Amino acid sequence: MESSITTSITVHSKFLPEDCKIACPEGTTILDAAQGNDIPVETVCSGKGTCGTCRVLVRNTQVPIPNAHDRRRLSDQQLAHGWRLACQHPVSEDAIYTHPVGVRPIRVVESSGLGKIRLDPEVQKIYVKPAPATLHNQTADWSRIQDELAAVAGDIDPTLEALQNLAELGESVDDGVTVVIAGNQIVSVEAGNTTERMFGMAFDIGTTTVVGALMDLVTGDEIAVASGLNDQHVYGGDVISRMSVTMRGSEWVDRLTEAVRSTITTIINDCLARTSVAAHEVYELTFVGNTVMEHLLLGIDPSRISYSPFVPTIVDPVSATAGELGLPVLSSANVWVAPNVASYVGGDIVALMLSTNLGRRDGNVVAIDVGTNGEIVLQKGKNLFATAAPAGPAFEGAEITQGMRAASGAIERVHVSNGSVDIDVIDNAEPLGICGSGLVDAVAELLRIGLIAPSGRLLTADEAKDIDPGLAERIVPDETGGAFILHESKDQPEQAIHLHAQDIRQLQLAKGSIRCGVNVLMQHAGLNVEDLDEIILAGAFGSYIDPGGAIAIGLVPDVGPDAIKAVGNAAGHGSRMCLLSLTSRVRAIDLPAQVDYVELSAVEDFQEEFAIAMGFPNPI
Amino acid sequence: MESSITTSITVHSKFLPEDCKIACPEGTTILDAAQGNDIPVETVCSGKGTCGTCRVLVRNTQVPIPNAHDRRRLSDQQLAHGWRLACQHPVSEDAIYTHPVGVRPIRVVESSGLGKIRLDPEVQKIYVKPAPATLHNQTADWSRIQDELAAVAGDIDPTLEALQNLAELGESVDDGVTVVIAGNQIVSVEAGNTTERMFGMAFDIGTTTVVGALMDLVTGDEIAVASGLNDQHVYGGDVISRMSVTMRGSEWVDRLTEAVRSTITTIINDCLARTSVAAHEVYELTFVGNTVMEHLLLGIDPSRISYSPFVPTIVDPVSATAGELGLPVLSSANVWVAPNVASYVGGDIVALMLSTNLGRRDGNVVAIDVGTNGEIVLQKGKNLFATAAPAGPAFEGAEITQGMRAASGAIERVHVSNGSVDIDVIDNAEPLGICGSGLVDAVAELLRIGLIAPSGRLLTADEAKDIDPGLAERIVPDETGGAFILHESKDQPEQAIHLHAQDIRQLQLAKGSIRCGVNVLMQHAGLNVEDLDEIILAGAFGSYIDPGGAIAIGLVPDVGPDAIKAVGNAAGHGSRMCLLSLTSRVRAIDLPAQVDYVELSAVEDFQEEFAIAMGFPNPI
Repeated sequence: MESSITTSITVHSKFLPEDCKIACPEGTTILDAAQGNDIPVETVCSGKGTCGTCRVLVRNTQVPIPNAHDRRRLSDQQLAHGWRLACQHPVSEDAIYTHPVGVRPIRVVESSGLGKIRLDPEVQKIYVKPAPATLHNQTADWSRIQDELAAVAGDIDPTLEALQNLAELGESVDDGVTVVIAGNQIVSVEAGNTTERMFGMAFDIGTTTVVGALMDLVTGDEIAVASGLNDQHVYGGDVISRMSVTMRGSEWVDRLTEAVRSTITTIINDCLARTSVAAHEVYELTFVGNTVMEHLLLGIDPSRISYSPFVPTIVDPVSATAGELGLPVLSSANVWVAPNVASYVGGDIVALMLSTNLGRRDGNVVAIDVGTNGEIVLQKGKNLFATAAPAGPAFEGAEITQGMRAASGAIERVHVSNGSVDIDVIDNAEPLGICGSGLVDAVAELLRIGLIAPSGRLLTADEAKDIDPGLAERIVPDETGGAFILHESKDQPEQAIHLHAQDIRQLQLAKGSIRCGVNVLMQHAGLNVEDLDEIILAGAFGSYIDPGGAIAIGLVPDVGPDAIKAVGNAAGHGSRMCLLSLTSRVRAIDLPAQVDYVELSAVEDFQEEFAIAMGFPNPI
Repeated sequence: MESSITTSITVHSKFLPEDCKIACPEGTTILDAAQGNDIPVETVCSGKGTCGTCRVLVRNTQVPIPNAHDRRRLSDQQLAHGWRLACQHPVSEDAIYTHPVGVRPIRVVESSGLGKIRLDPEVQKIYVKPAPATLHNQTADWSRIQDELAAVAGDIDPTLEALQNLAELGESVDDGVTVVIAGNQIVSVEAGNTTERMFGMAFDIGTTTVVGALMDLVTGDEIAVASGLNDQHVYGGDVISRMSVTMRGSEWVDRLTEAVRSTITTIINDCLARTSVAAHEVYELTFVGNTVMEHLLLGIDPSRISYSPFVPTIVDPVSATAGELGLPVLSSANVWVAPNVASYVGGDIVALMLSTNLGRRDGNVVAIDVGTNGEIVLQKGKNLFATAAPAGPAFEGAEITQGMRAASGAIERVHVSNGSVDIDVIDNAEPLGICGSGLVDAVAELLRIGLIAPSGRLLTADEAKDIDPGLAERIVPDETGGAFILHESKDQPEQAIHLHAQDIRQLQLAKGSIRCGVNVLMQHAGLNVEDLDEIILAGAFGSYIDPGGAIAIGLVPDVGPDAIKAVGNAAGHGSRMCLLSLTSRVRAIDLPAQVDYVELSAVEDFQEEFAIAMGFPNPI
């Protein structure tokens, strides 16, 4: 029989800078001891070890072995210096714990587009006033600043640029300086107290479009956003053609790298020009993109991704400096590039998983980033599965006879009823072509009416007469198996817009590829359609597609339109989260290891699965 | 009475990669346990904790708290990863210890000019052969390399350039690669096994002359050496005039920085052109220089050093990359800039202390780097004192009426006997002027003969007649108080070389400044002349001066010529030691804190001391 009597031993310790002595029962965590005595050691996660806010400097005792939480939330320098998370270790007898003061507390804020977010950026500013220099204290400027910093932030090395900044301040150093910490280094030193001004930029590097947002790291607000066509577009529309260029030689890698960096430079300059933020006040840049885009951003040749066994050079997150990438912000600014899952499931998908909270949502969820390369993530309970499906450019309107990008003049919506066709054109302009969403709509409508058979065949005018004589007149023969007139101008018959049988085939290939990926993942996870609770559509095109149309053409399993959610630029949101919140960034770093990547080309009955996925569902 | 019976507890552990289980008495160090069982854990210092060679990765037990030796010899990453020095910790029950294999053992080698040196460079090369990539193992190249590295070198991050190198290797990665580690980062990845080729360069950045040596880090040999005039010379001859330029504005700092970097670039290219070493095979550069030169090398404005209270921006060692400094070697190559003691006792003096083993020599020693700025270090037992004395350019032959640098045509030696004057001229050329050593000799000889009074006054021809009528004829009047003809050409009387009374005064000021520094340090340390065992003269000029002459003019206390030792470019030697030997580098880092810096301008009776030091000793 176990005794229920416990002997409580009391341990004594001291907290600085309060110089407060406390006594507590043995085994009490440092955090609990502090909070029980009104010592303001900050915490956000309430002692779970995940927020990293409650760090204390342990002195006058053996520093406890760092555990996994310490290692994740504290830098190597901090660990070596004796910093530990107060929530993870019990109080030691006679120990002295120093907790940071003057460091911005973590707050939960409402950020544009992201909803509530925990604001704990990697970037920190600390104002220090060093002991003044005299003939009897000729201690170097940096040493005097370091003496002050040690108590609040541990032992952090300055970059060369930060030392150069410091020297430029001259004797005004004695009046106080603000040190800027990012990426475990002091990246800048500024005159006076500038702790209220702190900025960063979050980027989503798409194969087609690059988007950058200038964020206020003090408030969490978006200050400016700009986007531009990726200057790499002249080298081809998709990652495969870009890689075929890089295989010509390393100077071609350089050209593609310079192209995307030039796009980013334009976006940075655009954002700065519209605000009062100076280039040297941008201390960190976060980037998400597919694996090929991230390689090229970093000047790393991605060629090896294009041929079997499709191996990337790196999937880990990469840190660099803005100077190394030639970007026009503070040269020492930390550049953080998101980790990738695999060659064809990149940092943009990690960012998507982060911003849609995949792995922690309720139920079974499929998330699809619909684009030239379709990436699919399946959440089954807490398990994540991912694959990539090469959809081709049909969803972008390319390789469609009269296709175009979703720009002014593109048919973006198609409604067919009772012999007539209604179209919506972007900017209400004279129709010039059809974009991806218009293509999906057109095919979905013609399937519903029955003018397209589930096999994908466009009926002839003759066959169609019985179904709808008015519409049948719009079916005209062509060399590919017929075409359907979506729009005709009586004055200028050469400006008619046709949906060709060949275009339907292209859409079948594109949607078949993605649907095949969805099916393979569901089989892999042992899920049937009725087990699915939710489908998330992301990406520029995915967010714009009509849920009914997506189901009608069989792009996604029929979970009913209400269970389909468009989330917009989920990758871009994830990039912002990584910039604003170290908690989010740590989750992004952890995510790839939690994902079971399924290589479609290694699936045994892939051809068969693909053939099935290409067919259209029977209309109801 | 204490019992002499001890109960020995046995602990069990395992060593990898041998997979050898061992049992030893509790308390046995990991190193002793390994060596007692023929497990080849390397050590150089035989377990004193100073060499860092015996590192092991601790697994399957609590990793012991790192002690001061661990912290000094292991990187923060290694500590966090669980590496510890085997000689510093006892074996734990059930622990698994992995020791590095394939890492070059530390050897003691004979290196050109440095004598015996412990060869343990910061740069290391490790050859790894990763598991091959297949469709069923699409692990990223970097991750597969990291898996192999972890066992031998711990967890080390690659630079962006190293990742770019890796990507360029393509599928040949599977055939094995050599990773290059420097400055706690992987700075390059090379195809195949290149562990036998490893290079670095050691520089001494003088105000006047820059010297660089290309060193083989595998053998410790010097491969090439080159030197050049510091391109900053157009901005003035000494650090004070250089700083007066930097005070014009930051673009002037940039100009001076570019000037010295351009000199270094020329030296690098010169060394590489004369050898088969490629630029990308130079993995580390070490630099020593005075505090102003080091600031300017790094692009850090040194202006603040020039005015009271004479504070430098940084005295700590600085690490950067060759790319940041725009130097034409591997862009990620580690740049290590030596620590300084104070504003006027720089990294070159730290290097001098290192290469002359100051602080560990026998007896009481004065070391002087004679130059425009004279730096003086006094060793009293194990204590070190240092100061700086602004000597002015007389020793360089500048501000002497017919002075010149020690180049072709300079009178470098002067012997006076029985009415005649013998001179040695560099290159046996027609004499064009007098350089520093010639000036010291001339004054020393005339003092000995009695033509110069101990006060420094040159006798008139009339006064000199009684001493040596032949020499008296060489004394001619001039507006400064007379001149002595060192050389005359009967054909071209305008080419005569005179020693003017004014030149004697300049030499008095220069030597008085240095001697005053020596005297102040000796008083500070409580030493008399008879307590001194040795005087070390270093620097281009200091090494060339005649010991007898140095005593005769009173530049140094009269310890007898045999106790004066010229050590040549001691700073350059120290720079090489820091490149070849981490042990030396660690000592260089520790040295500044051991030096008691004495600021001459803060000495109370400085004027009086200086006046005394200016006088010449009475000739014996």
